[in-house]
Amino acid sequence: MRAYDRLKERFHRRSAIAGALALLQWDRAAMMPTGGAAARAEQTAELETLAHGLLADGAVESWLGEAEGEDLSAADRANLREMRRVWVHTAALPADLVAALARAGAACEMAWRGARAASDFAAVRPHLEKLLHLVRQEAAAKAAALSVSPYDGLLDSFEPGGRSAEIDAVFADLAAFLPGFLAEVLERQAARPAPLPLPGPFPVAAQRTLVRRVMTAMGFDFAHGRLDESAHPFCGGIPDDLRLTTRYAEDDAFFGLLSVVHETGHALYELGLPSVWRGQPAGEARGMSLHESQSLSMEMQAARGDACLSWLAAEMRAAFGGVGPAWGDANLAALARRVERGFIRVEADEVTYPAHVILRYRLERAMIAGDLDVADLPEAWNRGFHELLGVTPPDDARGCLQDIHWYDGAWGYFPTYTLGAMTAAQVFAAARAAVPGLDAALARGDFAPLLSWLRANVHAHGSLLETEDILTRATGGPLSATAFKAHLRARYLEEA
Amino acid sequence: MRAYDRLKERFHRRSAIAGALALLQWDRAAMMPTGGAAARAEQTAELETLAHGLLADGAVESWLGEAEGEDLSAADRANLREMRRVWVHTAALPADLVAALARAGAACEMAWRGARAASDFAAVRPHLEKLLHLVRQEAAAKAAALSVSPYDGLLDSFEPGGRSAEIDAVFADLAAFLPGFLAEVLERQAARPAPLPLPGPFPVAAQRTLVRRVMTAMGFDFAHGRLDESAHPFCGGIPDDLRLTTRYAEDDAFFGLLSVVHETGHALYELGLPSVWRGQPAGEARGMSLHESQSLSMEMQAARGDACLSWLAAEMRAAFGGVGPAWGDANLAALARRVERGFIRVEADEVTYPAHVILRYRLERAMIAGDLDVADLPEAWNRGFHELLGVTPPDDARGCLQDIHWYDGAWGYFPTYTLGAMTAAQVFAAARAAVPGLDAALARGDFAPLLSWLRANVHAHGSLLETEDILTRATGGPLSATAFKAHLRARYLEEA
Repeated sequence: MRAYDRLKERFHRRSAIAGALALLQWDRAAMMPTGGAAARAEQTAELETLAHGLLADGAVESWLGEAEGEDLSAADRANLREMRRVWVHTAALPADLVAALARAGAACEMAWRGARAASDFAAVRPHLEKLLHLVRQEAAAKAAALSVSPYDGLLDSFEPGGRSAEIDAVFADLAAFLPGFLAEVLERQAARPAPLPLPGPFPVAAQRTLVRRVMTAMGFDFAHGRLDESAHPFCGGIPDDLRLTTRYAEDDAFFGLLSVVHETGHALYELGLPSVWRGQPAGEARGMSLHESQSLSMEMQAARGDACLSWLAAEMRAAFGGVGPAWGDANLAALARRVERGFIRVEADEVTYPAHVILRYRLERAMIAGDLDVADLPEAWNRGFHELLGVTPPDDARGCLQDIHWYDGAWGYFPTYTLGAMTAAQVFAAARAAVPGLDAALARGDFAPLLSWLRANVHAHGSLLETEDILTRATGGPLSATAFKAHLRARYLEEA
Repeated sequence: MRAYDRLKERFHRRSAIAGALALLQWDRAAMMPTGGAAARAEQTAELETLAHGLLADGAVESWLGEAEGEDLSAADRANLREMRRVWVHTAALPADLVAALARAGAACEMAWRGARAASDFAAVRPHLEKLLHLVRQEAAAKAAALSVSPYDGLLDSFEPGGRSAEIDAVFADLAAFLPGFLAEVLERQAARPAPLPLPGPFPVAAQRTLVRRVMTAMGFDFAHGRLDESAHPFCGGIPDDLRLTTRYAEDDAFFGLLSVVHETGHALYELGLPSVWRGQPAGEARGMSLHESQSLSMEMQAARGDACLSWLAAEMRAAFGGVGPAWGDANLAALARRVERGFIRVEADEVTYPAHVILRYRLERAMIAGDLDVADLPEAWNRGFHELLGVTPPDDARGCLQDIHWYDGAWGYFPTYTLGAMTAAQVFAAARAAVPGLDAALARGDFAPLLSWLRANVHAHGSLLETEDILTRATGGPLSATAFKAHLRARYLEEA
């Protein structure tokens, strides 16, 4: 048996544990009663420890060395490259740190739920301090293994090859562009009549039916996944069994619908991964910025564009029995594309969204570097938010307590949201240029032309190619802010 | 660190994996889309393999030996006894057999779903043959480790210390008693006017509300569990997070309700296990016959008795808006206690139920012994069924394809249903004798007196005591068919 084949077997086993962990996480958010939390934390810590042990085992390192000398196809060589990448991230950490991170993350996340509900940062602060202490150990260990900075050690787990120096450059570009652009958009918006509010309520049963119709139109396969409800929408599970969630509010016709479109974008990426590579690193999604580009291609690029919106508007009128001027295409479009200086990231429009991300990126870098204490986070958040968006959150629930990420141990993740938005703009522009009739199809609710192009040019690569290769082949060049800025200008300053 | 403490740590880890497996199994039955089956089988096989590896590791055997010489409390000594028991069952099997059983069981169970729907035994036969081949290896390995027969090696996994020689004796007793008794009951039943059928439909939404009211009255804690739906009702999960399922039919007001009462009986046992022993063998439920005795104490002993039925009848009338003679207490009781020679075990009344079990027990023993081929199962089933109940199943869906157990790899499980029914009668008679006002409380829907007694006399022991000890302390003697026969006589021949 070749060393490479031994590795394949080992990574297959790791993938099975990762799949079980994904189910446990979905269940915790969507199904689990509160009394199950402590036992679930132990289950998760144990499976994380076992998954770690499968790779940290010294044999794996030897096999990696041996396999690099074996006669492999180009695809197997790409898989081997990804195996080493995963191995470096895994073996960098001692087993007790893996278990401690899992337990501290679970405890902090449970404390955060209560703290956020009560807007009581002090209630979660000791948990977050303990967790950050461990995350900094994780960062240091990955930094040493990858020869990068501690923050980049974390970032690289979510965004293979991602480096803060590059992010700094593109974020500086955006930070220079956005404030002036936002002022211009808000001025233009203010000069027009405000859109009519949609007369609700929008019954949850009708929303559930509507979003399933939309998912089906988008190409989602309910034999390979399901849609449930949780406090925060997400797409979890595994490519053969995707677990999407959303939440519905009876007074909001858009949030549930557009968040489902977003999560379905993630799901379609997973469904489109090369199935012959299931269980192997080469078959996995290629990092979080590309992942987010697929959800945002659907939610921001497609669904909020005029063509697709005209179809969605008709679906909404049918679902809610909507008649009258508030339900007209133009009014619905104005509502769906409203720009506002809000406090909540997950409800933010695409113009202000980068500011939410830039704030978090700055703060988490400072905390990982040891330049900002957890105790000072609320004040730093509010000051930074005011600096970027000109308003100050009225409380921590709408400030530094709003997102799960830090409290769950996901540090170094936030910048991928905005990298994803830029990638989505670049990818969608390429699709539109390459696929004749793309918009006409979307106006009919026909996603097949868009999905086919995304499958062939993004999904099917899995991790066989690296991010920049995928993007260059698909769009003609590496990531830049150009397409994103052009998209924002076209949509918010040039459309009727 | 004492060897015993090392063992506790190891068993804690095993328990975390077992909890994850329980969630995966619940999800497969209640949530998973069909496309997730293959990946789920791999996840399950991997976790089974890892759980096996934690105990099969040679260190555990040494620690067991060492710990037996350590100075331990009586409770720790009981825990150590159970550790050895679990270890014997686990270490008896080679790792590759564990993985092969998990994979073959998953494949056979998936094939069975289709085969049962189509009543096509041939479609599942090769899967069942492959699985039985592996189960016989499992039986032989356990037989060698326990110095018992192969069948008893399997039985012992579900029923600690259970031996077919003893089961043969009590089943012979029942088999001698039941045919004559059944004829007498049917004759008496036929001599009375048939109960009025309940006018349906019984909307599923109303059933869902009703069963949750009943679960709450019984003492179920929704902070530690949930109720969902699946093809076969079951109670899974872990004591802190129980996962119950049922199914509803709009034309049947009883099945969903009484199956929830049954599963809630299982759940209350798990909830009542000693929480200081969580994650340790001493804290686990004591075998399947005692488990089934707790579900049947609720479903057959309590809920189908006059006192509790009068309360349930009022709840049913309120839930379904039932008025008129069909909804009277006496008519509802006659419906709930109707005895019939039906084909389906899970729908069988308590008089004919043992015949269903005895048939399966005979057949599975013959198959494990190599005396009956899978190919000959349908014919042997139909012949045996006719012998025991005087009717012949019209097809295999209502014959040898009806139950999941064999197709899922659970061989040696069936006799515990009838051992459980006998145990329930004995336990309930003891509770009624010990608790003044038990029936009066049940007639008000107050389960607290019954539950308190069961908690103190059964649940709280976990596996700190062995089954016969628990039963003797609770009821004054070891298991016999006496109380069960007395119960059947009182209910079916003496009640008004």
